Amino acid sequence: MKFRRSDRLVDMTNYLLEHPRELVSLSFFSERYGSAKSSISEDLGIIKEAFEQRGIGTLQTIPGAAGGVKFYVKVSESEARPYIEELCATIAQPDRLLPGGYLYMMDLLGNPSIVQKAGRLLASAYIDTKIDVVMTVATKGIPLAYAVASQLNVPVVIVRRDSKVTEGSTVSINYVSGSSKRIQTMLLSKRSLEEGSSVLIVDDFMKAGGTINGMISLLEEFNATVAGIAVLVEAEKTEERLVDDYLSLIKLSDVDVKEKKISVSVGNYFEKMSSLQ
Amino acid sequence: MKFRRSDRLVDMTNYLLEHPRELVSLSFFSERYGSAKSSISEDLGIIKEAFEQRGIGTLQTIPGAAGGVKFYVKVSESEARPYIEELCATIAQPDRLLPGGYLYMMDLLGNPSIVQKAGRLLASAYIDTKIDVVMTVATKGIPLAYAVASQLNVPVVIVRRDSKVTEGSTVSINYVSGSSKRIQTMLLSKRSLEEGSSVLIVDDFMKAGGTINGMISLLEEFNATVAGIAVLVEAEKTEERLVDDYLSLIKLSDVDVKEKKISVSVGNYFEKMSSLQ
Repeated sequence: MKFRRSDRLVDMTNYLLEHPRELVSLSFFSERYGSAKSSISEDLGIIKEAFEQRGIGTLQTIPGAAGGVKFYVKVSESEARPYIEELCATIAQPDRLLPGGYLYMMDLLGNPSIVQKAGRLLASAYIDTKIDVVMTVATKGIPLAYAVASQLNVPVVIVRRDSKVTEGSTVSINYVSGSSKRIQTMLLSKRSLEEGSSVLIVDDFMKAGGTINGMISLLEEFNATVAGIAVLVEAEKTEERLVDDYLSLIKLSDVDVKEKKISVSVGNYFEKMSSLQ
Repeated sequence: MKFRRSDRLVDMTNYLLEHPRELVSLSFFSERYGSAKSSISEDLGIIKEAFEQRGIGTLQTIPGAAGGVKFYVKVSESEARPYIEELCATIAQPDRLLPGGYLYMMDLLGNPSIVQKAGRLLASAYIDTKIDVVMTVATKGIPLAYAVASQLNVPVVIVRRDSKVTEGSTVSINYVSGSSKRIQTMLLSKRSLEEGSSVLIVDDFMKAGGTINGMISLLEEFNATVAGIAVLVEAEKTEERLVDDYLSLIKLSDVDVKEKKISVSVGNYFEKMSSLQ
């Protein structure tokens, strides 16, 4: 069965979006549609142009017999900035304030389209980095971790606070919580992470960084390396930051419980992105 | 700036995939590309045909001034069946067996593309159902819940076993675990679910259904109704099933710890789908 160019464009767009960071050979598409490779090449040119113009991402062409095309997510600053600013305004709403100066965030983290967009932004920063797996800690970081991982085409491993029978043998570590200074435990299923993996840590919120520091200690037990740390929100006002090199979309500068005022601004995302390029 | 048809097809495909179950007016696309509505109409015809032919989903056209087009995910049986069968074969691998006859599933649940595909299959069953929100219980059901919710374009609420300061006030209930017969507690943040919502319950695994029954009790506290129950895996061999009407992709019939044999088959998915149509 032969396919017209218009049909191919629709299906190829869907296919590439569903398979980010995966090398797809021209032969694959050529067989899928019964079309000449030269036509497929032209199709890919059209898709690449549209993807770049619309800030969807980019296509990288790898020449040669083992070559093909790879789709990478890539969000332009002109698309990313208004999105982050809008998110800042949403987070600054005073009705989020909870006792103790905590913020209610589950409405944002529970919204798949917000989480997916945040995931695309964070993933954009790591398209050229070797990443084998995304790691997060249960519970609130999980959706964002999947959103990032699906764009990077890698699995997710979830660190827990308590052991579950469905996890099998685990490796556990103790760590000091950055804010409460209490000793806490976290653990990871042994078979969930291969020795020597290159790991991107993703979480929804970072205060002093104690939890993320704990995850780093856990990675040492697996001889794994930290390829990056990405968070949705960082809290600026902490006595002592335990983690230095991280990426954040949003910075929470101050929470004034008395005046019900939440001060937020854009995180270090754009600075970090420009230093990466 | 004017866009050629080929550019429009690529961008519209991406846009529709990102906005499932959302009514998009022809004027929106017409303004986005500076094209006549008649051209947009033709584009949508091409996309609809390609989506249906490739089993990506379908476009529903709503006529009139307030009309437009809606994309729905819809996986055909010819695409769904081999996928579920492959998943069955993966789950039957004897090295998943854990002490107590439990199965290690985090490699599957940690794979975003497996989870997304399972989410598309489950969401396909509910495209004509009124659903306001997807509910799951922490931790393992979370990724699947997001995958389903993103296709249905609704938020996710997460039930927890323990209270967290970042959740605000909560409503808690006690329930009897179906397998251990022990009294357990689960709770939901009060502001995460609106009174009277129509809720789709999603979980990774259902044994007797005690946990899902607990979620149903919790919904009663919010005067919310159960629009459906969807699980990845149901365990067949249970003394007493507490939940009757549910959808499952996979059925776990038996786990023989001594012989290291796991028996799995296709769940009730296709039966339920045909009764829904």
